[in-house]
Amino acid sequence: ITGVENNPRHAAQALELGLADAILPLPDAVRSADLVIIATPVDAARQLLHTILENIPSSAAAMDMGSTKSGICNEFGQHPKRGQFVASHPMAGTEYSGPAAAQADLFENKKAIICEPQCSHSSALERATAMYAALGADIVLYPSAQAHDRHAAYISHISHVSSFMLGLTVLEVEKDEQQILQLAGTGFASTVRLAKSSPDTWTPIFLQNAPMLSQALQAYIDNLVRFQKHLAAADSRRLRQMIAQANGIARIIE
Amino acid sequence: ITGVENNPRHAAQALELGLADAILPLPDAVRSADLVIIATPVDAARQLLHTILENIPSSAAAMDMGSTKSGICNEFGQHPKRGQFVASHPMAGTEYSGPAAAQADLFENKKAIICEPQCSHSSALERATAMYAALGADIVLYPSAQAHDRHAAYISHISHVSSFMLGLTVLEVEKDEQQILQLAGTGFASTVRLAKSSPDTWTPIFLQNAPMLSQALQAYIDNLVRFQKHLAAADSRRLRQMIAQANGIARIIE
Repeated sequence: ITGVENNPRHAAQALELGLADAILPLPDAVRSADLVIIATPVDAARQLLHTILENIPSSAAAMDMGSTKSGICNEFGQHPKRGQFVASHPMAGTEYSGPAAAQADLFENKKAIICEPQCSHSSALERATAMYAALGADIVLYPSAQAHDRHAAYISHISHVSSFMLGLTVLEVEKDEQQILQLAGTGFASTVRLAKSSPDTWTPIFLQNAPMLSQALQAYIDNLVRFQKHLAAADSRRLRQMIAQANGIARIIE
Repeated sequence: ITGVENNPRHAAQALELGLADAILPLPDAVRSADLVIIATPVDAARQLLHTILENIPSSAAAMDMGSTKSGICNEFGQHPKRGQFVASHPMAGTEYSGPAAAQADLFENKKAIICEPQCSHSSALERATAMYAALGADIVLYPSAQAHDRHAAYISHISHVSSFMLGLTVLEVEKDEQQILQLAGTGFASTVRLAKSSPDTWTPIFLQNAPMLSQALQAYIDNLVRFQKHLAAADSRRLRQMIAQANGIARIIE
């Protein structure tokens, strides 16, 4: 396992933790690779993939781990080496970053999405799916990168926005309210957990998926405003109805 | 331990699970009690407390477990037996209800709020705090029920609204989007966990804390709208700024 890492402290840490056997400059690492895995912010991934495809051996494959897929799939749609690239998105991760955040069992029983499988050579697909299978992940195929991004906006990106903004709102009121921190229980912790996620990771995701995310956000804001209206009207029946409807989520996350 | 339970199925289950030694009608149970613990929706708690204080022995104490405190504290502020009542709110719970949801270690290392301790007799306070201490909880005193409700709006109630509305939003879009459920990862699960909570518990809490909650909700909606505006303008710097600010929440929940 050869690592490529800009940050010297992270490079040293990765070697120390045994996450990589060596750290090399990108072109050198790619030239001797069987499978290149891009795990960077989504804007950097699109830049790096150019260099990677320039240097990749013809028998090797490259895959990304990005949370947005339309941008990278469109940018490389006509690339002569598109077949060697597998566009992927594992539905697993934590709110932590850097080598110390690595978890060997992170992908176990998680979904791993492969987008536009029809655009990848079967040899590249096999390499990517073998990697995910070795880590215990289940492959989900998304022929359309646009459908992926629409769904990711609702299931993943909006969760992060909702969490970031909840954290922000509480921190703003906290300036004037000393005792408020003592009230934070496990419910609050669960809801704002994602608010600890890195701005470097999430700003480019939000920007790349802006139209879909904005639509999802609008639907979310509309529901919040509707709830607030029923609350102001003390409309117990309609509040209860919205909550009971939301309870349906148990079917998804249990 | 004597239980009082309207629902016959829950009553039988509580006995079977050993949560109660007997189930009695409320007045009978209260007449022989040392400590009466009200763990019902907050609207029912206010009704029951009248019957409880009517029947409670003069040496006994009653306490509630409700998430709102102004309503009950105001309603019983001038009650001749106010001193025997301890207004409390443990910052612990799960999204599940009913006897089968009981957890022996639920309160361990959790905060247990006692509101208006100045209005309770010291003997009643001692009984309530001894109970919490036996379960491993740490007592936090809130002399003002209004301050409690303002803080609970930001830390607990708004988390639930945010979660309920997120669940609702995703369920609404899911009607037209088959594959969307497969995308749900651990991040989404964490953010919508509270959306599984009972409408019977939460509708009365929201209604009792409507003015504070509405204010907190407005601040949350304002932040979401501000985020959406920066997103539409592709203002990377301001998005990053909001996210970095939200990261400050790590200080609270770690």
